[in-house]
Amino acid sequence: MTAPFASLAEFSAVLKAMPAADAEAVQAAVARNGQLTKPPGALGRLEDVAIWVAGWQGTDRPHCERPQVIVFAGNHGVVAQGVSAFPAEVTVQMVGNFSAGGAAINQLSKAFGAAMSVHALDLDRPTADFTVAPAMTEAEVVAALATGWAAVDPEADMLVVGEMGIGNTTPAAALAAALFGGAGADWVGRGTGVDDAGLARKAGAVDAGLALHGPLLGDALQVMRCLGGRELAAMAGAIARARSLRIAVILDGFICTASAAVLEKAVAGSLDHCIAGHVSAEGAHGKLLAALGKEPLLSLGLRLGEGSGAALAIGVVKGALACHSGMMTFAEAGVSGA
Amino acid sequence: MTAPFASLAEFSAVLKAMPAADAEAVQAAVARNGQLTKPPGALGRLEDVAIWVAGWQGTDRPHCERPQVIVFAGNHGVVAQGVSAFPAEVTVQMVGNFSAGGAAINQLSKAFGAAMSVHALDLDRPTADFTVAPAMTEAEVVAALATGWAAVDPEADMLVVGEMGIGNTTPAAALAAALFGGAGADWVGRGTGVDDAGLARKAGAVDAGLALHGPLLGDALQVMRCLGGRELAAMAGAIARARSLRIAVILDGFICTASAAVLEKAVAGSLDHCIAGHVSAEGAHGKLLAALGKEPLLSLGLRLGEGSGAALAIGVVKGALACHSGMMTFAEAGVSGA
Repeated sequence: MTAPFASLAEFSAVLKAMPAADAEAVQAAVARNGQLTKPPGALGRLEDVAIWVAGWQGTDRPHCERPQVIVFAGNHGVVAQGVSAFPAEVTVQMVGNFSAGGAAINQLSKAFGAAMSVHALDLDRPTADFTVAPAMTEAEVVAALATGWAAVDPEADMLVVGEMGIGNTTPAAALAAALFGGAGADWVGRGTGVDDAGLARKAGAVDAGLALHGPLLGDALQVMRCLGGRELAAMAGAIARARSLRIAVILDGFICTASAAVLEKAVAGSLDHCIAGHVSAEGAHGKLLAALGKEPLLSLGLRLGEGSGAALAIGVVKGALACHSGMMTFAEAGVSGA
Repeated sequence: MTAPFASLAEFSAVLKAMPAADAEAVQAAVARNGQLTKPPGALGRLEDVAIWVAGWQGTDRPHCERPQVIVFAGNHGVVAQGVSAFPAEVTVQMVGNFSAGGAAINQLSKAFGAAMSVHALDLDRPTADFTVAPAMTEAEVVAALATGWAAVDPEADMLVVGEMGIGNTTPAAALAAALFGGAGADWVGRGTGVDDAGLARKAGAVDAGLALHGPLLGDALQVMRCLGGRELAAMAGAIARARSLRIAVILDGFICTASAAVLEKAVAGSLDHCIAGHVSAEGAHGKLLAALGKEPLLSLGLRLGEGSGAALAIGVVKGALACHSGMMTFAEAGVSGA
């Protein structure tokens, strides 16, 4: 589908007109949950997850039979600042690996029955180094948002977006700092494995970006344009499209969450259809999730990106929905209540 | 298979003769893990899980294609002490629900491709109330261990054991207290939902059991006989059988873990083939896992039993093994290393 926006102003208007969850379906799911053959609350967070998905799907029998995983890839001018342990050509090499089925996200998508696709965004044309210029023009960021928007399958019943982009924990930290305050050092982490000097270079790059683009950073969509990246904007576009379709989204790690946070800061409530799949080992991901009020489903020390932590959480969501939608009630099963 | 023991002394001898993990397979899996297309350590705990399973399966490409879930059910004389919010007839009703496919564990087993079976152990013949007599005779506890032993499918490549038994958090707390010290109040929880008075009755029952059977409780297998229950002993028997077959086990909640702990206290190292699937919301499960040195994979507030938390963790283990065994190496994928 062609995106219904051709500028950031139009994208902002789209965000403001997004649908809400179905309150009646939530109420019906709460009622059903109370009748299932288990002590009240005994499935813990699984019960909340099922009721929450019910609201987005508009049914008291929510399902996760057609999950979609989309990986967006981009390259970053800020790698010139020495912010990554890997060379930039690894981005295109990893896109090849995704296409060949050899990466972690391929295995996780397969394990949880998700349809996976990969979108490489102008890998031979990195964004500008945000320490010296805005990362993208308005046309570029809108194109990336539109790529994400168009990539979502309207028939999917759950969405995971992931990313690959050497250097992209630095723009992600810049987004977080611009949106939530603090300096570079508060938000950068070791990414794929930089040493102390690399970590200091990352913090310095973020600080330089914040200083250079300061006057524009009160507008969340300008934050994405000046400090973000194509794959980050594409993730935000896909998350917005999912909301327009009332498809629930499982957020991945630091980069995905920082990209999503742009939407929340642009229009409060924009991430109500999103759950945090996991908390990553990358630097400030836990702090970012807390700022968004999102409690992660998993905490297993992952820090790979690609959508891997969120894809793993598909299993938890599938389990939650299987219980909620498949279990018998006390009456159906002839079991005495408490 | 007929169990190779007819007494607790013989069961103890079996435990002492259990196989170890395959050190060469572990070494090969560590080497493989280091070559996969991801930054070192980026899959966090998934990497450890895969390497650990590799050791038990004796291959550097471990798998979880035939997981087995077994639910054991038993009834407990100690319910006479008013320790449960549900009436004892719910045990047999829930066995009916398991057989009809209506319980949470049925949905989770299906969601993760596990073969599930249920074994009801003499439901019309509850164990003795352990506040007045040993819960079981030696013949009874050995029979329950043997039921568990025989229930394991030698072709399974992962095992979950769960339980159903109204009142069984009280014997589980009694096992934990007898094995690790402390009083009833240190180990009891609200189970299916008892109030404060019920919680006090549970603590009192455990204390009475500890006082009555004290002289025997230096022997972990006597702890199971005097304070346990048929489904608890059956879980221990199944976990032991899995070890004899080098099948890795995912532990469930408080009752499963307390049953497993009997094996560890009987012969140190007996649970090396077991991982903690989750930490339950039931009372002292976290403390019990810490005493066993087991870090849970999930923490989602479940407190249902039935093997539900462990079954949910099958998804995590499947994800870990899919990545480890399915990903390409840097060389295979033509990706530059760090």
